[in-house]
Parts: sequence; C-alpha cells; structure tokens
Amino acid sequence: MNAVLHNDRLLRALLRQPVDVTPIWLMRQAGRYLPEYRAARARAGSFMALCQIPDWACEITLQPLARFPLDAAILFSDILTVPDAMGLGLSFSDGEGPRFARPLRSAADIARLAVPDPEVELRYVLDAVRLIRRELDGCVPLIGFSGSPWTLATYMVEGSSSKDYARIKALLYDQPSVLHCLLDTVARAVTVYLNGQIAAGAQAVMVFDTWGGILAPRAYREFSLAYLAQIVAGLTREAEQRRVPIILFTKGGGAWLEDLAATGCDAVGVDWTVDLGEARRRIGSRVALQGNLDPAVLYAAPERIRAQAAQVLADFGTGPGHIFNLGHGIQPGVDPDRVGALVAAVHELSRSRQPDRGT
Amino acid sequence: MNAVLHNDRLLRALLRQPVDVTPIWLMRQAGRYLPEYRAARARAGSFMALCQIPDWACEITLQPLARFPLDAAILFSDILTVPDAMGLGLSFSDGEGPRFARPLRSAADIARLAVPDPEVELRYVLDAVRLIRRELDGCVPLIGFSGSPWTLATYMVEGSSSKDYARIKALLYDQPSVLHCLLDTVARAVTVYLNGQIAAGAQAVMVFDTWGGILAPRAYREFSLAYLAQIVAGLTREAEQRRVPIILFTKGGGAWLEDLAATGCDAVGVDWTVDLGEARRRIGSRVALQGNLDPAVLYAAPERIRAQAAQVLADFGTGPGHIFNLGHGIQPGVDPDRVGALVAAVHELSRSRQPDRGT
Repeated sequence: MNAVLHNDRLLRALLRQPVDVTPIWLMRQAGRYLPEYRAARARAGSFMALCQIPDWACEITLQPLARFPLDAAILFSDILTVPDAMGLGLSFSDGEGPRFARPLRSAADIARLAVPDPEVELRYVLDAVRLIRRELDGCVPLIGFSGSPWTLATYMVEGSSSKDYARIKALLYDQPSVLHCLLDTVARAVTVYLNGQIAAGAQAVMVFDTWGGILAPRAYREFSLAYLAQIVAGLTREAEQRRVPIILFTKGGGAWLEDLAATGCDAVGVDWTVDLGEARRRIGSRVALQGNLDPAVLYAAPERIRAQAAQVLADFGTGPGHIFNLGHGIQPGVDPDRVGALVAAVHELSRSRQPDRGT
Repeated sequence: MNAVLHNDRLLRALLRQPVDVTPIWLMRQAGRYLPEYRAARARAGSFMALCQIPDWACEITLQPLARFPLDAAILFSDILTVPDAMGLGLSFSDGEGPRFARPLRSAADIARLAVPDPEVELRYVLDAVRLIRRELDGCVPLIGFSGSPWTLATYMVEGSSSKDYARIKALLYDQPSVLHCLLDTVARAVTVYLNGQIAAGAQAVMVFDTWGGILAPRAYREFSLAYLAQIVAGLTREAEQRRVPIILFTKGGGAWLEDLAATGCDAVGVDWTVDLGEARRRIGSRVALQGNLDPAVLYAAPERIRAQAAQVLADFGTGPGHIFNLGHGIQPGVDPDRVGALVAAVHELSRSRQPDRGT
C-alpha cells in the first residue's frame, strides 16, 4: 500500500486539525444518480454482484471521484453484508429494497448466530478495500463502514424494510434480554469486520445508525448507543502510523449528540434537521462534525445550491473540525451536474473561511 | 347541544388546571386495530364513505369509547378532506394509502386554488361533528382536527405518500414564493375549516404536522411553523362559554418545542423520541404537553405496558398540564386488549400523582 496521502483534508478535519478548505464527500456518492453506476449495475446483473465482485466494487467506488474533486472515497458495499455473512440470505429486489430469506424469528435463531470471520465470509469486502486502496494510489483517503448493531438487528428481525418496526419493537419491549443477546453478537461481528477493513486499508470508518432515530430516549441509549460505544472501544485506532478516525451517525439522533460524542468517537454525523451551529456549541469542542445539507437541496438550481451550502458553512462557522456532507444519502433522481456544483461551491466558499491554514 | 360536560379532564389538563387523574386519549383510537372498525369499513365499501357519511363517521368515532374509559372522542375523518374539497380528487387504495387524481403540478395549479366554504364543500364533516356531539351527550369532549398546511401541501404536491419528498422539496428550494402562495391558501382553508368544526361543536382542536420533521430548522420555521402560527391566530378561542384549547403536534419536531409553544397554542403534542421531562422543563410553564408513549409498546405484555406508562407519567412528574397519549397513532396490528390495559394503567397510576385535586 502507498503510505503517501496526497489529499489528507478529510483525515485532518476528522481530527479537528486545520485544513486549507473544508473537505467534502457525500453519503451514497457512488450510486443510482450516476448513469455510469446504472450501466454497471445493468451489466453486473444484480446489486449483490456489484458488492461481491471486488473489481465491480472498486470501479463503482471510484466513479464519483472521476467526475468530482471529492476529498474521500467510501467503499462501495452494503450495510447488510454482515447479516448475510451470518447466514440470513440477503437479496435485493428492484424497487422493494433488501430482503432476508431467513429472518430471525425466535430466541433460538438468535442464540445460533456466530460472528463471521471477515477474512473468510466477508473476504470479498476486504479484497475490495485492498484493490481500491491500490487504485486510489494515495489520491484521497478511503472510508470503510458498517451498519450499527441496532440498525442491522432491525433488518434481521423484520426481514426487510419496515413501516412500523412491529417485530423488532415487540422484541425490545417484550423480550429485552433476547434483543441484547442479538445486539451483542452483532456488535462483536461489526467490530471484527471494521477492524478487518482497517487492516485491509480503510483510513477512517463510519458506523451508520440509520434507524436509531425511531427509538425513545431510554431505548436509544440501551439498545443502540451502548453498542456503538462497545464498537468504538474495540476498534483499531491507528494504522500506517496514522490515527484511524471513527465517525458515528444516528439519523434522527439530533437529541443525542452529547451521548454520541461521549462514546470516544472522533466525529459525529449530523442530519439536516439539526442546526449545525447548535451542534457545534453542544459537542464541537470534543469531536468533529460531518454534515449536514438537506439532500433535497440538490434538486434546486446551482445558485440556490451554492446559497444553501454557504448557509451550512456559516452555521458551522470558522475553525477546524467540519467535514461537509449531506444529512443523508444522495437521492437517485438528482442530476450529477448539481453534485458537481455543490462540491465546487463548498471548496470555493470555504477557502476564505479558514483562519489558520493547514499544510 | 348539551352544554353539560360530565368528564372535563381533557379540557382542564389542556389548560393546565388540576385534574383527579391524568386524562388519556390515543391518536387513531378509532381505527383498524378494532375489529368493529374493520367490519364497518367492509360494510361501507370504502374509507372515504366512512368519512363522508356522518352516520358512519359518528359510529366509528364512538367505537373506542364503548370499549375503553377514554377521556376524549376525536372526530373520525382524514387530514386530506381539505385538499379534496379544493378539487384534488382524493381516493384511498388498500395498502397504498391516499392518492390525489389531480395533484398540483405548476404555479398555475396553485394560483387557481380557492378556500372551500366548510358549510358547503365540507358540510359532511361538520354534520358529523354535530351528530357526534349529540350522541356523546356530554360524556366526554370532542376533539376536532386538521392537517397542517405544510403536511397538506406535501400530499397535494407529491400526489400521494412519498419516500423522498422530491417534488415538494424541489419547490421549497427552487420556488419558495410559489410554495408560500400554496401554504397561505391552505392555512386560510384550515383556519375556516377548524372554526367551522368549533362552531359545529368541537371542544378542542388539534393540528397534525405529520411531515414537519423532514425539514431543516430554517425551512421548518419558514414553511411549517409560520403557518401553524397563522392558524392559531385565526381560530375561535371560546365557544359554549369555554375556552377551546388548541393542540399543535409536529412529528419529529422535538428540536422546535419552544417555537411551537410560542405560537400561542394551549398544548404541544410530543412524539416518543423526546424525553417528556425535558420537554416539560423546556416549555411546560407555558403550555400543556400531550404524549408520548412509543406506540410499539402496545405490542408488549400488559405488565410491560403498565411499566412503560408509569415511566411516561414519572417523566412528566406531578402537577397539572399532562394529557397522556401515544407519540403517534395506534398501529393496526395491536390487540385491543392491550389498549384497554394502557387506559386502565394510566388512570390508576396517575390517581396518586395529583398533588392538588380538581373538581
């Protein structure tokens, strides 16, 4: 692996070190809004093939970087590869989202789960990480990721996307100890999986707690936050003589930013329903902040995108510790040129906002 | 109309006056979880018939009161009756939710909208209110309701339920003045509609801002909150020699409770993602609070429902100003007996929590 990193803005900002311009990457920056992604998916035949064949995963990871001067690559994969490796049988149907052939239906199903060895059952992911690092050749850092235990458990118990989360919530309120058993197993699986990604070359890692926001405050702390903290405590924090920053993101978790910051992570992702200036006042002295433009702004005209990006930068204010991102993934209907306008605007507008310049 | 109200706990609690026990009603208390509701819907042939024929609307409104000692009735209707009366052509397909035959597709569509006369285009709703009041005979108060302008506009522009709100958000970010025109028209329509309900006998009114929580903070204040405040300012505040309390509820609006309280409403609905004690510390000196049990608790065993209800009561603490409710509507798969267990638990547990008793 090439240890030289030509653009280290992301890693510096995640550690609240000075940077020349605010780094930007976008959740789902490699995805359906790109025609070259849709073409690749059509050729590969299925979404799972894109994830499971390292050449495809690498090609798709790099697609947005060929178009836009983004400051990071993020591994192309899916949060549900871990439960798939645990034997649940993942598939994706067009328009319907993910589905497990063998969802968890009993305490016995849960007791039977084992922690996969990432170099065996998830080797295709680690091979993709190694290949992407080689292809990136130090141009920008590579972010690895996983779903949070609570979010993965939600899919594992519901079997697919859910409108009312009846099964997982029934488990939570009626059999909390069974749910804790599941969450502990998944947290251990996520920890070794992310450590595998770090060993393979991921230079930062992010945990997506997509469904933490559906929980009541006490339930969030007990069933999601505690396992995020368990993961943070178990992760490799240094590789290639660099700190490996950890980003935690609970969508809809604006009320719990202090709790997320207290886990020991380096950065907290913030969705667009939170005022970024308020988030900074609350936790900005302890962690970096990543976010938080409403993804729907990308439907607007370029000058309006620019104005909204300026507002996010102003909300954060001057000084280090901000990684620009959307508050959630890019929506499939977005015109790629609008994404280009956003990336250019963030770099240009933030150049004047850095009081003490880095490197 | 019978001016005597035998159980006035709800109205007293909404005005932060002492009560003997904490009043409870439940969002969607008349709904699909009740077998008698499903039977009525099958006989009526469609959901719209249930709303549009006052005898049906009255029967369904009263169904949960025949089972449980709830402290209020809420008009059985739908938030989308207003846009339907504006000519958009509402229908409901099983499992798919609401759909408009003529969604708003241009600024010209929006400019053409007129404010319906509730005694003409929405007479069926007001007739239902009058009939329900007669049938209730002062047993408990009747709550009227409407959707918020932002929430109604979302459906009117999207045409149906939406996953990513692409159309309404594009309008918001690209043509804000067109959206303001729509929201102003809808706010005026909602105001006369709710005043019509109050004149017909509604003793409290609630505005449901179901989709306010998808907005960024500035957008929430500009496109949802401002129109909630406009409605509050335009409502009849007294009828039958009593104050008519106004309840505002933005689902996912936990960050903006202070803004909601500052509109001049009497009570704020709180979803289950907010700690009710914290909500009380923030706004409890100005308004009553309604909420906020996670609806999924109703999947649990009765003793666990009781424990969770006790927690909500403890979170609020002693003293007046609490109306027990779920944080969102009852889910269709819930066993009615669990609802009965909740209502009994709230009344029993709260009896000892009232330091100074009312009437």
